[in-house]
Amino acid sequence: MSKKIGIIVGSLRKASFTKNIAEAMLSLLPEGYEGKLIPIGHLPLFNQDFDDEGTTPESYAAFRKEIEGYDAFIFATPEYNRSFPAVIKNALDVASRPYGQNKWNGKPAAIVSVSPGAIGGFGANHHLRQVLTFLNIQPVQQPEAYVGNVMALLDEQGKVKSDDTRAFLKTVTDALVRKMG
Amino acid sequence: MSKKIGIIVGSLRKASFTKNIAEAMLSLLPEGYEGKLIPIGHLPLFNQDFDDEGTTPESYAAFRKEIEGYDAFIFATPEYNRSFPAVIKNALDVASRPYGQNKWNGKPAAIVSVSPGAIGGFGANHHLRQVLTFLNIQPVQQPEAYVGNVMALLDEQGKVKSDDTRAFLKTVTDALVRKMG
Repeated sequence: MSKKIGIIVGSLRKASFTKNIAEAMLSLLPEGYEGKLIPIGHLPLFNQDFDDEGTTPESYAAFRKEIEGYDAFIFATPEYNRSFPAVIKNALDVASRPYGQNKWNGKPAAIVSVSPGAIGGFGANHHLRQVLTFLNIQPVQQPEAYVGNVMALLDEQGKVKSDDTRAFLKTVTDALVRKMG
Repeated sequence: MSKKIGIIVGSLRKASFTKNIAEAMLSLLPEGYEGKLIPIGHLPLFNQDFDDEGTTPESYAAFRKEIEGYDAFIFATPEYNRSFPAVIKNALDVASRPYGQNKWNGKPAAIVSVSPGAIGGFGANHHLRQVLTFLNIQPVQQPEAYVGNVMALLDEQGKVKSDDTRAFLKTVTDALVRKMG
């Protein structure tokens, strides 16, 4: 049976560069590993009252169950204002609760930050890593993946142009696969 | 005319401890300064397509206009998984856009993190500060405000119990007022 890798993309834009990079990584997974983009944009902003008062949205219950079903994750994040977007933080928080039922616990993950600029989303990448620490997600440490100047790396269809870029992204997916054991 | 201070609370719980602390700070503002809690929980998760495609939600337009009307802000944040909640990041991102129309630009702000635990939301406080840097919000640097063990500080109605706590919170609001000039 294939191992399942859930892919979380932090930009909701239809033509998101970050999604383009995530899809490239998905296509680089070896046989026996199945990647799937996990929708997160529909989850209402977290409110602990939902769980405390028994008004948990259907979408929360379904998302928490879905997260449980994955063996590992790839987090692909743009940088908004030197951190990662609310939509990723919300997804992380939702599946970390109710208290004591952290669905992310112990699972491996690769982190890639993506930016049109030169810094490659470093701020987003490391803010995300701090949260993953608390959630006990086991991150790929090396290679780090700061994908800068992303518009130069993609063609008009959003496909990765060069073999060099694909080779680099494969070092990241390969490291995740090794971490999954 | 009063100067207006907008108060952003990062927890949507009705009985939020963070909101309790924010309300205490509001009550400590001197004459001539008017504090108001700004609703942020209704804003849809940011998607750049909204602005690019002319489908900007009404709530975004109203929120951006509201932010423009404040002279300063107080950010009161709980800590979720060692960072600040999605609901604050979303509000910051929404009013930072469209590109080149950052509504937060140059305005002073106080930051207070609130936690039932001993660390006082340090992780949330400093992740928030990194984002405020990029938005060119002018933060109160000292005193820093890490409100830990918050449940011991509030009575059953959510009011601050001791004069010492009030006096500390007043050092923060006073510093904000000085920064407003």
